[in-house]
Amino acid sequence: MRAYDVILKKRNGLPNSHEELKFLIEGYVKGEVPDYQVSAWLMAVYFNHLTPEERFDMTRIMLESGDQISLSEVNGIKVDKHSTGGVGDKVTLVVGPIVAAAGLTMAKLSGRGLGHTGGTIDKLESIPGFRTALKKEEFFKIANEVGLVVAGQTATVAPADKKLYALRDVTATVDEISLIASSIMSKKLAIHSDVIVLDVKVGTGAFMKSIEEATELARAMIDIGKRYGRKIGAVVSDMNQPLGKMVGNALEVKEAVETLKGNGPEDLDRLCRLISARLIELARGVSSEEAEKMVKDVLESGEALEKFRSFVIAQGGDGSVVDSPESVLPAAKGTMEVLSSKDGYISYIDAEQVGISSMILGAGRAKKEDAIDYAVGIEVFKKLGDRVLKGDPIARLYFNDEEKAEKAKELFLEAYKISDAPIEPPSLVHEIF
Amino acid sequence: MRAYDVILKKRNGLPNSHEELKFLIEGYVKGEVPDYQVSAWLMAVYFNHLTPEERFDMTRIMLESGDQISLSEVNGIKVDKHSTGGVGDKVTLVVGPIVAAAGLTMAKLSGRGLGHTGGTIDKLESIPGFRTALKKEEFFKIANEVGLVVAGQTATVAPADKKLYALRDVTATVDEISLIASSIMSKKLAIHSDVIVLDVKVGTGAFMKSIEEATELARAMIDIGKRYGRKIGAVVSDMNQPLGKMVGNALEVKEAVETLKGNGPEDLDRLCRLISARLIELARGVSSEEAEKMVKDVLESGEALEKFRSFVIAQGGDGSVVDSPESVLPAAKGTMEVLSSKDGYISYIDAEQVGISSMILGAGRAKKEDAIDYAVGIEVFKKLGDRVLKGDPIARLYFNDEEKAEKAKELFLEAYKISDAPIEPPSLVHEIF
Repeated sequence: MRAYDVILKKRNGLPNSHEELKFLIEGYVKGEVPDYQVSAWLMAVYFNHLTPEERFDMTRIMLESGDQISLSEVNGIKVDKHSTGGVGDKVTLVVGPIVAAAGLTMAKLSGRGLGHTGGTIDKLESIPGFRTALKKEEFFKIANEVGLVVAGQTATVAPADKKLYALRDVTATVDEISLIASSIMSKKLAIHSDVIVLDVKVGTGAFMKSIEEATELARAMIDIGKRYGRKIGAVVSDMNQPLGKMVGNALEVKEAVETLKGNGPEDLDRLCRLISARLIELARGVSSEEAEKMVKDVLESGEALEKFRSFVIAQGGDGSVVDSPESVLPAAKGTMEVLSSKDGYISYIDAEQVGISSMILGAGRAKKEDAIDYAVGIEVFKKLGDRVLKGDPIARLYFNDEEKAEKAKELFLEAYKISDAPIEPPSLVHEIF
Repeated sequence: MRAYDVILKKRNGLPNSHEELKFLIEGYVKGEVPDYQVSAWLMAVYFNHLTPEERFDMTRIMLESGDQISLSEVNGIKVDKHSTGGVGDKVTLVVGPIVAAAGLTMAKLSGRGLGHTGGTIDKLESIPGFRTALKKEEFFKIANEVGLVVAGQTATVAPADKKLYALRDVTATVDEISLIASSIMSKKLAIHSDVIVLDVKVGTGAFMKSIEEATELARAMIDIGKRYGRKIGAVVSDMNQPLGKMVGNALEVKEAVETLKGNGPEDLDRLCRLISARLIELARGVSSEEAEKMVKDVLESGEALEKFRSFVIAQGGDGSVVDSPESVLPAAKGTMEVLSSKDGYISYIDAEQVGISSMILGAGRAKKEDAIDYAVGIEVFKKLGDRVLKGDPIARLYFNDEEKAEKAKELFLEAYKISDAPIEPPSLVHEIF
């Protein structure tokens, strides 16, 4: 077999066989197929895409290039969720306790955030004492005892994807649905959960900018998951503004606790209930109404909140974060309000730029080596469609460095557009699969 | 500037600026832009093509990467022709003497053939004593005294094209019109002729398989040449069968001499007259009828034939090749006839495979290091549309090695298809520009 012929077939719009993809990808990882041939193939894929069969094969080849985590030692129905990433996305912190309280097990590996905001691991580590570097036995033990465990990724999952992604990143071949779907799923399927629900974000703060693209990505990933024998669902949810009100690690933990107590912002509450219900539905084979009822019950009874406490304690954190988040979580030294410069309606938010503002405050990493300041972040008061008057506070910045705060404020203001005419805010959920 | 952005623009269907192309191509030659980025860009070009402006820029950048040959020391109107390559293509050997006899100057650099048949240089070197390695002064002197000189390429012409072509060759990005046009023209324009006529071949023995593609290539090259300020024309000519009857170096020289004597095969004679007339028309600004008349005159008066003799003698060859080619040119030890296995009409010829048969006999090079056997080759008796009876000779192989001849014969037979119904042979000339 020759890499040339694999490229030629894809370039000419023909599908590559499993053997051809294996030859190309494994050869690339081993250094036997040169990068200049792989990048030509990637660009051909950008134009001609991959068939569902090829996407499955790609996923499998990349998945099998690395370690896999069997959950055979974990009891019950194992569920997982995955978000394609957004601003203010603390959904895992709420969904995990809900589904665990409903009797399912979420044994999750999660990455650190790189980019504008921290990842789930970073958010959890803002709770004093919380440990995410767990040994395998400990991970399984907490999963079995609490039904919820979240650890940092230590195993070498899908190294082929990592190498391929680095090449895509420098050859303008990142934003192709088949490649994105295979990349995400090769990492997601490495941990052997029974049920997966994907939260595909779309909008100004997400990688996917159109609902059509996001829907196509969701369908592609569901197809891969099903071919892998998993029960899998997805929601396409809006990311044209931060989810909830809080952006920043400790601030988001606090908001998650409020949501578990029934006092969360409406959008966050609704999305967390939806994803939880979808997981329960797929895991238990019950109707969506029954699943929603179970979610409501564990929230109203306080069982979900207590599950969060047990989870925090099991991973070494201070459980009283549930009772008084403010006194447990790190607090910023100062706050600064961002005021509206005119009367009108919030008509547009560049959510990614809101994320970048929070990164500048210290809530995210510009480089992998950067340390995160857990205390800082942004509280958003006004969202799309809201009426504002000149001088009204749009947001509050929580800062430890006033110079950074000034810069973040400037960027934040640029992210907002205010129109004279009222606008209809976007739907929170665009598609449910 | 970043190579990433140059790729992204081309991928998104936007044109690259001269500066961007210069950055990419010069960076690649210097080793500053890695091959994996250039190959991704090449594949994006395969799908999105280059604009006429970009093709001109690419040509210029590759041309300026190497040596250029000024013809300012050569008198008169300097003309050149270029063929995209075919089987039995000895057009230069006939056109050169015709246009020189008509008072123009053809000072030509030519490559050796790599592939199924020898190049012009190889054909000429089959004449005993003929030298193609000429010093600059000698080259200019012969050009001025004879009006016709053909030397092997010694200068480093368009090294950027060479490096890029090697990458295209392994990344399935060779067959894209813009890249082919820029590649050919970057080498063609390196020698400063006033007038160029391109012979773009199309058919089973050519790189271009469809008339549409060949026409597009001709138009692209003409556009580049015009932007470079050259007078330039083109013909799109048929290569669905060997041109003339002879394939092989000494055999083709003999056929060229016969054609200059007015005894050549009809197709070769017609194409040579057409290309010669087109060169004269563009150079002199005369009508095509006047140009054709001038061609006719120098052929009928014997001036073209005598010009060939002077040219051969000036480059050290035996001038009596003009009088008795058989006694001067090397002759093969044996001949073998290829007979038709059935009655019918020649309906299809894989001309490339005829070329490969002649290469197997020894007339071409499989590898750059291979030596050429000037004496061997193929004489084709039957062409498209011809009636044959079972047992009729279709061709004669001239060989020095019987084992090779048997193999060549087998391949040759496979190249021919014979149908029961008569067929219309293809036109020799599809387009004239």
